[in-house]
Amino acid sequence: MDGPPLPLRHARHGSGTVSDPLPPRSHLPGPALGPGGEFDLIRRLIGRGGPLPPELRVGPGDDAAVLEGGWCLSSDLAIEEVHFRRDWLTAREIGARAVAAALSDLAAMAARPVAILLSMALPSPGGAELAEELQEGAAGEAARFGAVIAGGDLSRSPGPIVVDVTVIGRTPHPVLRSGALPGDEVWVTGALGGAAGAVRLWLAGEVPPPALRQAFAHPTPRISEALWLAGEGCLRAALDLSDGVAGDAGHLAAAGGVRVVIEAGLVPLHPALLSGDFSEAVRLELALGGGEDYELCLITPPGALAGRKGEFEKRFGVPLTRIGRVESGAGVEVRDEPGRSAPRVSGGFSHFTEGV
Amino acid sequence: MDGPPLPLRHARHGSGTVSDPLPPRSHLPGPALGPGGEFDLIRRLIGRGGPLPPELRVGPGDDAAVLEGGWCLSSDLAIEEVHFRRDWLTAREIGARAVAAALSDLAAMAARPVAILLSMALPSPGGAELAEELQEGAAGEAARFGAVIAGGDLSRSPGPIVVDVTVIGRTPHPVLRSGALPGDEVWVTGALGGAAGAVRLWLAGEVPPPALRQAFAHPTPRISEALWLAGEGCLRAALDLSDGVAGDAGHLAAAGGVRVVIEAGLVPLHPALLSGDFSEAVRLELALGGGEDYELCLITPPGALAGRKGEFEKRFGVPLTRIGRVESGAGVEVRDEPGRSAPRVSGGFSHFTEGV
Repeated sequence: MDGPPLPLRHARHGSGTVSDPLPPRSHLPGPALGPGGEFDLIRRLIGRGGPLPPELRVGPGDDAAVLEGGWCLSSDLAIEEVHFRRDWLTAREIGARAVAAALSDLAAMAARPVAILLSMALPSPGGAELAEELQEGAAGEAARFGAVIAGGDLSRSPGPIVVDVTVIGRTPHPVLRSGALPGDEVWVTGALGGAAGAVRLWLAGEVPPPALRQAFAHPTPRISEALWLAGEGCLRAALDLSDGVAGDAGHLAAAGGVRVVIEAGLVPLHPALLSGDFSEAVRLELALGGGEDYELCLITPPGALAGRKGEFEKRFGVPLTRIGRVESGAGVEVRDEPGRSAPRVSGGFSHFTEGV
Repeated sequence: MDGPPLPLRHARHGSGTVSDPLPPRSHLPGPALGPGGEFDLIRRLIGRGGPLPPELRVGPGDDAAVLEGGWCLSSDLAIEEVHFRRDWLTAREIGARAVAAALSDLAAMAARPVAILLSMALPSPGGAELAEELQEGAAGEAARFGAVIAGGDLSRSPGPIVVDVTVIGRTPHPVLRSGALPGDEVWVTGALGGAAGAVRLWLAGEVPPPALRQAFAHPTPRISEALWLAGEGCLRAALDLSDGVAGDAGHLAAAGGVRVVIEAGLVPLHPALLSGDFSEAVRLELALGGGEDYELCLITPPGALAGRKGEFEKRFGVPLTRIGRVESGAGVEVRDEPGRSAPRVSGGFSHFTEGV
């Protein structure tokens, strides 16, 4: 099926760079983000920053900020009617999914989760019950990855359910968005487009098959996978896929000062997209431009992952797929067969199209 | 004037205890919060926690969580129609006030601000302009206290403006809510009831005088004041006043296992309340039960502050007032003259009255 472009749901703040082990920095790096009206806005917002305090090793722009001591922090909003609808998810799933999406930013840094802060604004009446169910979902998902709820805030909402999750993780060696070098390889974990496929069907008034609903409702932050890959020394750069790999890879390109080339034919489609519901073109659009799979996009030195792919897939039960390579240049190019560029698949509309 | 009870706006997660310097903890302390339906809900929510990871020195329940390395983290929501209205504040003020309120939690820990994460959900159309103005206000307020914006999230909102600020501060010696001992003194910074007075007038369709509007729109987190007092070794316990001192002091009482006695006649009223707009009873209600002054309530050893009050007031231009004392027992008692209990002033209604 065809449909409207998928919304660009998240727009995290830019991309900073830092060497590793992390020295103190004295200046805010220019935010290195991929193209797009929303990122132009974020560039303007964070481009105004002054000097960074030395205890802040990585400022706005990467998947998480990094503090002295290796603490990684990131916040992630989940808003009813923007990121989910109440007839799509149970309250417990809303809480769990908000935490999973936020933890995915720690996966992208190869940081071990320690704690979360859970802020919730909930409509009344029903707010107390919602709070308990959301919190149960959130706490359960946090616990799966070794994190506890360390604080937060609770408020009434005049309308939508609002959840903001701040994740707190730690690593002595954060993997940043920068670091890609010409000749490197581009890999992704898992399969892409499943969450977007579910949304596409819901928006068309249909009921997604269980496997697609699962992809949307229960994304798995690739924490264990990232920690293993980082421990193997395989990762030059990484980010998590919240807005679609074709758009998100632009942040890796901008942060590294390189060009990312994606071979469309190599992109692993979510298997449940291979049904009669989606045309071949839509499948590819969902996999390249659909958001919220929360898989990882990895930049590795040439040849570093090929020999470990089998062990990775056996260990984690998750596909690991090379989808392209890094060249000198800038931006993202999607090729539909070797040597020929396909039309660039957009990440979809911006949250704020009118002003940017 | 008289009016409805003021809303209880914030309900932060409970109160943990820890000795200082901070050892690792292996178990979540029972959340020690004052009475109230909303705090019963929070007690239920955070009472489910399991063991704390050793890197988390203070878990849910104090003004901020504390990580190994002395990092203090707290999140604070500001929601349109709950915490503010757009005809009360400019967009820049909304951003600045959200940051000030969040930084106030760092003041309550005597922690130095380092950075903030700024999450905003904004209605469209107009979202891009709102984002820029809110961010300017937020960044300016953060900069006043030495903090930069280190990240965050940006989303469309289907209705209200939503701002969630996570503050990141640091101190080797956090001041907790626990620690009060019988015989200690209870002090507050500044004057109370101004913000609530402005809200009371707005809700009655009146225009608050500039000094009351200022108290609501531009609260000052008492960072410098707290750092100085902590450096002088004067603080046994502290919290910031977001819901009114009569209610908030209950958290100090619960965390310390003591009774807090407040002499109503000693409570410093905001000078602009002393106009014809408010009866004497309402003034006291606003000062004791009105929220969002973001002043500090301090527990000090007997006699520790009396000799420093003059220097404090000269240094900071802010009153420092003893309002009561700590006794053995439990809860908060408000006395209207020595030895006689006044009716307890409630902090107002709960966000979620229907389920608690």
